[in-house]
Amino acid sequence: MSLHIWPIEGIPEVRRGDDLAGLIAAAEPALVDGDVVVVTQKVVSKAEGAMARIDPDDARGHKAIVEDQSVRIVRRRGDLIISETKHGFVCANAGVDLSNVDEGWAALLPDDSDRSARRIRDGLRAALDVEVGVIVSDTFGRPWRRGLTDVAIGCAGIRAVVDLRGTEDARGRVLQVTEVCIVDELAAAAELVMGKATGVAAAVVRGVDPAWLGRGEVHAEVVRPPQEDLFR
Amino acid sequence: MSLHIWPIEGIPEVRRGDDLAGLIAAAEPALVDGDVVVVTQKVVSKAEGAMARIDPDDARGHKAIVEDQSVRIVRRRGDLIISETKHGFVCANAGVDLSNVDEGWAALLPDDSDRSARRIRDGLRAALDVEVGVIVSDTFGRPWRRGLTDVAIGCAGIRAVVDLRGTEDARGRVLQVTEVCIVDELAAAAELVMGKATGVAAAVVRGVDPAWLGRGEVHAEVVRPPQEDLFR
Repeated sequence: MSLHIWPIEGIPEVRRGDDLAGLIAAAEPALVDGDVVVVTQKVVSKAEGAMARIDPDDARGHKAIVEDQSVRIVRRRGDLIISETKHGFVCANAGVDLSNVDEGWAALLPDDSDRSARRIRDGLRAALDVEVGVIVSDTFGRPWRRGLTDVAIGCAGIRAVVDLRGTEDARGRVLQVTEVCIVDELAAAAELVMGKATGVAAAVVRGVDPAWLGRGEVHAEVVRPPQEDLFR
Repeated sequence: MSLHIWPIEGIPEVRRGDDLAGLIAAAEPALVDGDVVVVTQKVVSKAEGAMARIDPDDARGHKAIVEDQSVRIVRRRGDLIISETKHGFVCANAGVDLSNVDEGWAALLPDDSDRSARRIRDGLRAALDVEVGVIVSDTFGRPWRRGLTDVAIGCAGIRAVVDLRGTEDARGRVLQVTEVCIVDELAAAAELVMGKATGVAAAVVRGVDPAWLGRGEVHAEVVRPPQEDLFR
């Protein structure tokens, strides 16, 4: 098994109402069954109109939007708010983002990123007659470790967490816990070819294990319910 | 830029004192300058003899080793201990691992995984006359999200965190915070081709941005000091 990962170039500036799957299909018409397409949250939010007006002269405007998008403040230090969003993600500033958007606007997380991924998957099937996995990715920080990494906030056509519990290890012993969050690892891998400042909003991963394809959902599989979480 | 990632197959069972770089070089002699070799912690610990004896009949033996490897208990629930290790990592059970090791032994984290990575890098240079990046990876859980992902616990010849702060975004605006932990993203990507139960202990990533190669260290760049951390 080997993976090949490349950026999808040539997607134009995305605007509200745009057919994102159609733009991806036009830019990358040679997708094949089993490819995984990783799409960054920013263009998904733009296409879906998940944006909020923000007064650039009001420093508190950003904070108000962050609080509106949050159901629980987990930590606060200075201007940084770590909160649980209404979607269940715990991240900085509720995922509200001012970079790469028009002046006077902030990008919010999509209402339901798994649904967003399903729509893109359906659109790619309709446009290109292919069965692909789709991941919507965003850039999150994490406790204890510096630097950001991309994670999956939605997926379709690919399992989010692959449970290897009970598989024998190489010595014939049963592994104890090996539930691997493959959609986060795929999102991270895709980020490496996209870069932050180049305007590339999607990537293809070719070569994933066919056993990983199928029904999957970030919300149901990855988001950890508060009662099983030790850190909020 | 595109990435190609594949597993290094044919590394034999690793024992204390083995020349790990030599085993990798023999299994993957066609490495080229700029490749990144990701090696799992387990084989690094075995080669370095970072192991502890454990009585399989004593359920408390594992816990005693975990506590010995920890400098601070961050959370505890049932048998699960989240602690800060003496190396500065915050992870479950201090990285002490019983899978894929001989009965009666537990694998510990290497004493200094950045040094481990430097040794492997030096060994590959000596064996194959190549300048590669090396990452030592391990499988960690995380708060708020289910499933495990691989992260870097050591690196050499590659920068750990690439700071894109100040780079202009696609709209000409200056990005606020985009410090990407590329070694964690590379470790995650490599895990996708290694699998847990197959005994594959290393992978190659070809095609990384040449600007990312150079001095790097997980301990200095990625491990977040307690005073800047909000979650311990």
